[in-house]
Amino acid sequence: METSERVGRYVRMVAVEGQGTELAAALLRVADGMSVQPGCLAYVVNAAPDEPDTVWVTEVWSDPAASEAALNRDIGEAGLGAVLELLAAPPEYIEVTPLGGPGLP
Amino acid sequence: METSERVGRYVRMVAVEGQGTELAAALLRVADGMSVQPGCLAYVVNAAPDEPDTVWVTEVWSDPAASEAALNRDIGEAGLGAVLELLAAPPEYIEVTPLGGPGLP
Repeated sequence: METSERVGRYVRMVAVEGQGTELAAALLRVADGMSVQPGCLAYVVNAAPDEPDTVWVTEVWSDPAASEAALNRDIGEAGLGAVLELLAAPPEYIEVTPLGGPGLP
Repeated sequence: METSERVGRYVRMVAVEGQGTELAAALLRVADGMSVQPGCLAYVVNAAPDEPDTVWVTEVWSDPAASEAALNRDIGEAGLGAVLELLAAPPEYIEVTPLGGPGLP
């Protein structure tokens, strides 16, 4: 398989019941901050059509170090504090290695 | 939650044992064809770092009709025939509604 420096992941987050909209809004604020992080190629916040309290984030980074740096920033600075408070359970991660295709920056 | 015309999905496909690389290659060919489909905003093929025979595709479409049209084309024309032959099981779909964030065309 073509090895690619880029890393990605799908992150599934479930809000405390009834807080799905707030969770999506908090993550969209986080996404704004991520857009200026070096190596952030994608940080797309998604609702889950059939699960009102579930939010998925699609992440793509230029390399593992960029991902580490952005996600290990001070939680407050990244706006992740508000997100963590809304979660009913820890996030679930599906790690992927982007290989190619339209839409991949 | 902000309703958005855009639709997306994560598609998980598992190849017959040992055929993960071939499956990714076949899907990259499909991705090439998708890039000229109206409304195709993303069709990104990903390897799964810990599962050599698993391939994930991240799809984003401008609207449901664009997704339907592209995916209901003649399987041969779309190159999906080669993909189906390599699968060990039917694809799994996680439907999502993209809301915003960097990397969302």
